[in-house]
Amino acid sequence: MPWSLANMLKVKMGWVEPRGPEHDVVLSSRVRVARNLRRNPFPSVASAKASATVLAAAFDAAKKAPALKGAAFLRLDELEAVERLFLVERRLISQLLAAEPKARGAVVGEREILSVMVNEEDHLRAQAIDSGLCVKELWDGLDRLDEQLSESLDFAADPRWGYLTACPTNTGTGLRASALVHLPALALTGRLNGVLQGLPRLGLSARGMYGEGTKVIGDFYQISNATTLGRAEGTVVDEVSAAVKALVARERDARKSLAEDEHRIRLEDLVYRGLGALTHARCISFEETMQHLSYLRAGLTLELKLPATIELLNDLVMLCQPAHIQLLAGRELDAVQRDVLRAGLLRKKLKAG
Amino acid sequence: MPWSLANMLKVKMGWVEPRGPEHDVVLSSRVRVARNLRRNPFPSVASAKASATVLAAAFDAAKKAPALKGAAFLRLDELEAVERLFLVERRLISQLLAAEPKARGAVVGEREILSVMVNEEDHLRAQAIDSGLCVKELWDGLDRLDEQLSESLDFAADPRWGYLTACPTNTGTGLRASALVHLPALALTGRLNGVLQGLPRLGLSARGMYGEGTKVIGDFYQISNATTLGRAEGTVVDEVSAAVKALVARERDARKSLAEDEHRIRLEDLVYRGLGALTHARCISFEETMQHLSYLRAGLTLELKLPATIELLNDLVMLCQPAHIQLLAGRELDAVQRDVLRAGLLRKKLKAG
Repeated sequence: MPWSLANMLKVKMGWVEPRGPEHDVVLSSRVRVARNLRRNPFPSVASAKASATVLAAAFDAAKKAPALKGAAFLRLDELEAVERLFLVERRLISQLLAAEPKARGAVVGEREILSVMVNEEDHLRAQAIDSGLCVKELWDGLDRLDEQLSESLDFAADPRWGYLTACPTNTGTGLRASALVHLPALALTGRLNGVLQGLPRLGLSARGMYGEGTKVIGDFYQISNATTLGRAEGTVVDEVSAAVKALVARERDARKSLAEDEHRIRLEDLVYRGLGALTHARCISFEETMQHLSYLRAGLTLELKLPATIELLNDLVMLCQPAHIQLLAGRELDAVQRDVLRAGLLRKKLKAG
Repeated sequence: MPWSLANMLKVKMGWVEPRGPEHDVVLSSRVRVARNLRRNPFPSVASAKASATVLAAAFDAAKKAPALKGAAFLRLDELEAVERLFLVERRLISQLLAAEPKARGAVVGEREILSVMVNEEDHLRAQAIDSGLCVKELWDGLDRLDEQLSESLDFAADPRWGYLTACPTNTGTGLRASALVHLPALALTGRLNGVLQGLPRLGLSARGMYGEGTKVIGDFYQISNATTLGRAEGTVVDEVSAAVKALVARERDARKSLAEDEHRIRLEDLVYRGLGALTHARCISFEETMQHLSYLRAGLTLELKLPATIELLNDLVMLCQPAHIQLLAGRELDAVQRDVLRAGLLRKKLKAG
């Protein structure tokens, strides 16, 4: 199938299929590295010409990398604004690249598991995303891609500091490992704040679904390492993996207590009301959708009878986003039109039995 | 079928069947008169013995009245508290009679159309309730019952003031005529307050479903005449009838504009979300139920496809009340248990075809 945004809608992203370990709590894991080309100014201070040179060099290197065989090469200034937002929603590019597309690009590998942003805050940001808790496996794959890219590109590094980056919080390994976790039971039992407050002591931070500075919706959290300096990649990956595993255990405990005690009826009420709203609304916002999908996801783990699978819910988390709705409709829509189309899509996809 | 509270649940009340004029807006009409026995103290100051005498005399008179053939005679102190609340919910007795049942009674005619409270604020309060806007017809029937009762009872009246009552607002004809109207479209279009504020100028007042001092729920209002003194019964009845007819026209206008303009999607959203909540909740309060039933009722008048009829919705308005839920269950329940049973009842009754 030739690459196009419309085709991206049809081919499922790697992480949407719930194959990975602990996928009932961990939607996806993500690992990314920041790399810069020696003797080239960082993107924020580079001239248009310098940026164009970096973009060309990065695309060339990516074309030679076997890990990116069959990848799509996107020049962001050739895309419509809604198409760039679509890529943000798929977590392939950042808000920065969507807002200022000039001389910026993205390389998107098969099933969107491996990808590279060019001329974001750093010259290259390479990432790997897949289903479940799998940061170690992702790091192995990303490390191979990093090596393949470094055969064509001369990455700026200092023997003492490690890889040099535009922002000092990325210096060192340049590595960030994260997991998108779903914590509805911790939220419902009032234990979530305590859990989140404990994260910084483990060197971790929690963010909204779309990364730094974004709001938390539907009890979906990005958990990632807070620093990259002074620890080997393997250590960072192990630490994040262990911490997320502990979080998974606490969420499972909370789910068990919700399933057993007198809260059960309240939980069932939330889950089925969520289903009622998603299958009956004629107009529904993305945020409300996410909250209901969150409860449905929790309901599935409690084995309630629901006309949905985890895979369908993962898919809906993606498809119900504003730019996705517009690409599905094939045209730009205002907020009310999007809410109406989203409601129609949900009714169709969740039609009982 | 022998009379019992359980059987009352099975036989539909007269007004629940939507037969009367304007029943899409006017659930029911009600007319009542207040009467007192000459030379007997008003109930609030009567001795236990005096009250017992009045109760016996009233029951005797009612037994002789052809209009009350086949009626049930209830001594309220022989009923459980929940059974008295059940009668309040069916608008057959007042909160006062439920709270202080001693030496108080009720006579309930066939299909609960005609009924009499004994030793409420006045010795006798006779009422007629039926479907749609029919205050005139009800007055005719109630007038006949009044005549039949007066053959056995000597009602206190003054040639200048008319019938004497415990509270001066009832003196004169002792007549109150009211209609239970459903005004969701006026509420949704923001026109309701203006309409309600105009009522006092017409000598009318608006109250909640359960009469004076009760909260408005689900956009259901009792509209009644404010005074009873100095006007003939026919005049009061005509005035209330005309005013409610005007209100019906305004509600219909509002429904039409909701159906036509850009609010339509919002209205459909409310209606179907209401259906979604009623068919999916596992725990639902009476007030929330009434609000959703209100939107469903509005949806039916806009010819939306819904698994309900006006009759079913009228029935649910009755059945979902707290004491009804408990009598259906056959036992006393706390608030959460009631909410759970109500949710189950709604799912069963509204199961989509």
